Amino acid sequence: MSEPTPNATPRCVAYRLRVEFGDCDPAGIVWFPNFFRWIDAASRHFFVECGVPPWHELERRIGVIGTPLVDTQARFVKSASYGDVLEVETSIPEWRAKSFVQKHRMTRGGDLIMECTEVRVFAARREGGGIRAVPAPDDIRAFCS
Amino acid sequence: MSEPTPNATPRCVAYRLRVEFGDCDPAGIVWFPNFFRWIDAASRHFFVECGVPPWHELERRIGVIGTPLVDTQARFVKSASYGDVLEVETSIPEWRAKSFVQKHRMTRGGDLIMECTEVRVFAARREGGGIRAVPAPDDIRAFCS
Amino acid sequence: MSEPTPNATPRCVAYRLRVEFGDCDPAGIVWFPNFFRWIDAASRHFFVECGVPPWHELERRIGVIGTPLVDTQARFVKSASYGDVLEVETSIPEWRAKSFVQKHRMTRGGDLIMECTEVRVFAARREGGGIRAVPAPDDIRAFCS
Amino acid sequence: MSEPTPNATPRCVAYRLRVEFGDCDPAGIVWFPNFFRWIDAASRHFFVECGVPPWHELERRIGVIGTPLVDTQARFVKSASYGDVLEVETSIPEWRAKSFVQKHRMTRGGDLIMECTEVRVFAARREGGGIRAVPAPDDIRAFCS
Repeated sequence: MSEPTPNATPRCVAYRLRVEFGDCDPAGIVWFPNFFRWIDAASRHFFVECGVPPWHELERRIGVIGTPLVDTQARFVKSASYGDVLEVETSIPEWRAKSFVQKHRMTRGGDLIMECTEVRVFAARREGGGIRAVPAPDDIRAFCS
Repeated sequence: MSEPTPNATPRCVAYRLRVEFGDCDPAGIVWFPNFFRWIDAASRHFFVECGVPPWHELERRIGVIGTPLVDTQARFVKSASYGDVLEVETSIPEWRAKSFVQKHRMTRGGDLIMECTEVRVFAARREGGGIRAVPAPDDIRAFCS
Repeated sequence: MSEPTPNATPRCVAYRLRVEFGDCDPAGIVWFPNFFRWIDAASRHFFVECGVPPWHELERRIGVIGTPLVDTQARFVKSASYGDVLEVETSIPEWRAKSFVQKHRMTRGGDLIMECTEVRVFAARREGGGIRAVPAPDDIRAFCS
Repeated sequence: MSEPTPNATPRCVAYRLRVEFGDCDPAGIVWFPNFFRWIDAASRHFFVECGVPPWHELERRIGVIGTPLVDTQARFVKSASYGDVLEVETSIPEWRAKSFVQKHRMTRGGDLIMECTEVRVFAARREGGGIRAVPAPDDIRAFCS
């Protein structure tokens, strides 16, 4: 199964968050690494909502400890500040042999704030420390498509 | 001055950091939003090393409050963990009319850990809250090229 | 009004949060500075729920920019991990001349996770940078008691 | 060995850090949870400087995975902002049966910024998830006194 598999009508999961005072910088707007904090939460939330067990349970069962990021492209369209409620829509538009593409679109009341396209892998621990990529387990792919 | 100006032999500034325990996630490796935290520090450090005054001083003088991110592309090559010392090399390969490209290359003892290419703008406060992009001040461009 | 004013039956406001993967450290449990991140959110949420306008609005009206921390005492009773939903109960048991005591009690399904007692001040910007403490505005005290 | 052992002339280790733009909040000063981020780094740095192996090595050897916090008391004296270089002086003034007291004093050019007194434990993983406190290994106590 080494060809990319486009996921024609991918499942879409929403994640909501409220921006806090401490998420903002001296310019009074969200400091951008915090957007990635929320994107990572939305990424994991996507799997949880699709019925995938939490990573610590998966580690015991099949060795998977998470989905580290390999590549990301992000575009920041409007700034946000504390008190704002943001919504992230997350989907997996493509499965590859050892990786997958995850897209996130963050809005505030319909206005696009930022969006990003990630390549992630399923990872297991490597003997002696560090991690290694493993193919996406078939049942996880089935859950999330 | 609306055409992109490639910066043929851009100035390069190094920023060093040590990964801490709390920068790592349950997989024992750096949680990726922390890479962006360091990239942002390297971005500001670049201007400081080039002789640009800190943002709070620039705000009083010319209204500039920082260089928010418009777009980023990042590639994560190797994982890192606590105790690692990482070095970021930062440069500005291109100036545009209202934005600039900043590149960062993060290594550990010569090994590439991650790299990213950003588009940033110089920003000033907007009446009534929020920020707006302003052209890069000429003297800052001169300092940093 | 220089004597401490105990607040006999203080108003109590609840704040809920979900622990994320990236909030946890290599031991697999919440990295403690993140507890303070949530406590700070609970602190601000308390004022919002009591009807106090957000700090950026208060700054325009009366110069108040937030409630920085002067002193904190915290006790960590049980660890928490990602997926946990935590609830923080916040109140102001005492008003002082230029400061106030805020208490937070964080639980998971009734089990105490951590609790902390803070002394905070209302702050305004100081000429030339930095901040200074100001007495709690009377209407804010009325809102929150 | 169940009595507290005061450590009469405790070893003192210094940790330096530079405050970054993103460490500061809309009031332009360090957002307080970041102080705890640095205190935690200073805590671990103390052990490293005393010759204690990193936690991932200790885990393989004796099961110790870190020194989670049980209790902390902190006092914030002056604010700090980006560009500031801060120094933390860390020591262990007391060893107890299953815990120890660690003190941190953070200064900027001699001025006290904040200080905190922590109670921490040495922790090992518990069967089935979570962590448990273990007595401080004798050789670590010897290293750090």
